[in-house]
Amino acid sequence: MTSRLHRQVSAGLLCASLVLCAAARAQSDPLPSWNDGAAKKAIVEFVQATTTQGSPKFVPAPERIATFDQDGTLWVEQPMYSQVMYCLERVPALVKAKPELAKVEPFKTVMSGNREAIGKLPLKDLEKILAATLTGMSVDDFKAEASKWLDTAKDPRWKRPYTELTYVPMQEVMKYLRDNGYRTYIVTGGGQDFVRVYSEKTYGVPPEQVVGTAGATKYGYDKSGRPFLTKEPKLLLNDNDAGKPEGIHLMIGRRPYAAFGNSGGDQQMLEYTGAGDGARLMMLVLHDDAKREYAYGPAKGMRDTKVGAFSQKLYDEAGKKGWTVISMKDDWRKIFAFE
Amino acid sequence: MTSRLHRQVSAGLLCASLVLCAAARAQSDPLPSWNDGAAKKAIVEFVQATTTQGSPKFVPAPERIATFDQDGTLWVEQPMYSQVMYCLERVPALVKAKPELAKVEPFKTVMSGNREAIGKLPLKDLEKILAATLTGMSVDDFKAEASKWLDTAKDPRWKRPYTELTYVPMQEVMKYLRDNGYRTYIVTGGGQDFVRVYSEKTYGVPPEQVVGTAGATKYGYDKSGRPFLTKEPKLLLNDNDAGKPEGIHLMIGRRPYAAFGNSGGDQQMLEYTGAGDGARLMMLVLHDDAKREYAYGPAKGMRDTKVGAFSQKLYDEAGKKGWTVISMKDDWRKIFAFE
Repeated sequence: MTSRLHRQVSAGLLCASLVLCAAARAQSDPLPSWNDGAAKKAIVEFVQATTTQGSPKFVPAPERIATFDQDGTLWVEQPMYSQVMYCLERVPALVKAKPELAKVEPFKTVMSGNREAIGKLPLKDLEKILAATLTGMSVDDFKAEASKWLDTAKDPRWKRPYTELTYVPMQEVMKYLRDNGYRTYIVTGGGQDFVRVYSEKTYGVPPEQVVGTAGATKYGYDKSGRPFLTKEPKLLLNDNDAGKPEGIHLMIGRRPYAAFGNSGGDQQMLEYTGAGDGARLMMLVLHDDAKREYAYGPAKGMRDTKVGAFSQKLYDEAGKKGWTVISMKDDWRKIFAFE
Repeated sequence: MTSRLHRQVSAGLLCASLVLCAAARAQSDPLPSWNDGAAKKAIVEFVQATTTQGSPKFVPAPERIATFDQDGTLWVEQPMYSQVMYCLERVPALVKAKPELAKVEPFKTVMSGNREAIGKLPLKDLEKILAATLTGMSVDDFKAEASKWLDTAKDPRWKRPYTELTYVPMQEVMKYLRDNGYRTYIVTGGGQDFVRVYSEKTYGVPPEQVVGTAGATKYGYDKSGRPFLTKEPKLLLNDNDAGKPEGIHLMIGRRPYAAFGNSGGDQQMLEYTGAGDGARLMMLVLHDDAKREYAYGPAKGMRDTKVGAFSQKLYDEAGKKGWTVISMKDDWRKIFAFE
């Protein structure tokens, strides 16, 4: 064998082994943290039906869009949304910069540190805190502050960074979809700018694939003439309820083929997804695992809680609508990476 | 040689020839419709500097974002924006549906067919026509109407579909950037929903990479309970001037590395792009070719025209800011594909 021929044969063997490796990888379980059951089966069948050439439900790659609610669907939302924690913990710095706020409600209550009183603040007061801590600064300053907080803040129960409290089974679904040509979007009621700070590192979702509650920004120049954007207290998109399909149209312009949620705030996103032709996958995460995570909403007969509306009716109707309910307790072998 | 070995050698040869083909392609000119000059050089040097591993100006693939204005930058904007033509040509159908409009201005003037009078309609009246023809229908109905119009409407000068009036040299730049890992976005003052109808077919830019002037939509249900979105007459983003960087932040969440425009409405997008670190490419298309396309704006000493503000000052300052002016006359060997 000539040296040249030898190189070509080697290249051929390399090609063959790459093909074999890919085949072996495809055969291994893409969802190892899922127990066998209706939920896992629905995901695998959807992916196979929409990505197998020749399948009657085949979806061309550019149209493969999957949307995920974040709080309660991709990570823990109890006892409070992480972003609300961020806003509350920003209040001392805010009061330091504007001392007159120390005597004004709701900042006075937050500064008191009285958890019970803080927990009872009405929505209107919470909104004041959100507006004061999420707007009025440059986009870059906000990003730096939020990033610093995420690096140090810890969840009160597990004493771990919030970004470690993501659900491994959902991370597997996102990866499985991406490995099959889907683009995964986060469609969250949370702040778009906030979630974008960590979405790429935490979920592998780049900032341009985060749709969230978004405010206006204002273009201006600093003293040296360098342009920058300031976060304004003007709401452009309330990305909850009907705002989710509206936000999907605004930011993506395509109807998703798969949508994942857990609360009444996700209902319209799932309806909108399900109203499209061909194969569609709609799933709801049910929080029924008080031991490993939390049990709330329909699992406790609750109609709504502080952190969102969990309609029993929504879960009851899921079956009729062809939506699949994911039981954290029964469907998930593992919940967190640190377990 | 065994049959198996023969197959492996064949695979090896195939691999080798694919590599050779790719190398040959990389060596061929990616911008054949461009004359050699400062503009072409700036584009090629930017791409090489930002995509060559080890280059001090290397940009990681996920951050490679390039934004393009559309009207006057990617396609012809004279004598009127195509979308304004669409709106004017939709007026008869609108009047047929609502006959009372026939007696009301500005619809009366449009129905008269008097081109001179239509050309003199003040901005306020044009806005009324835009609102009446771009909102009030479902997102799907609008898409179907705009699509039908684009298939049949013709530009008054070349008597060709508007989608054939794109500039080949700019199509080459978009493709060259994409071949080098850049994602190309259209950032247009035109309607986001309008441009999304043809962006993929015309420019290879998918709907989710079109940022444009955008209105709110409203989620609702038809008689059979099927959800749909209605286009509302409420402006969310005026994607002109400062609205361009604001829209880029809202829809992409990353600062572009390259930005292309042609008028004062693109100034802030180019400033914002240029304010980032590392290598950045800012380019302005100068319409100075009355024979092959049009000469207007700075090429005619105009400060502004009906279709946008072309500031002579902007072009004068381009050099100081490190922006590159593209002369259609001198830099482009070919303008349209049909030439």
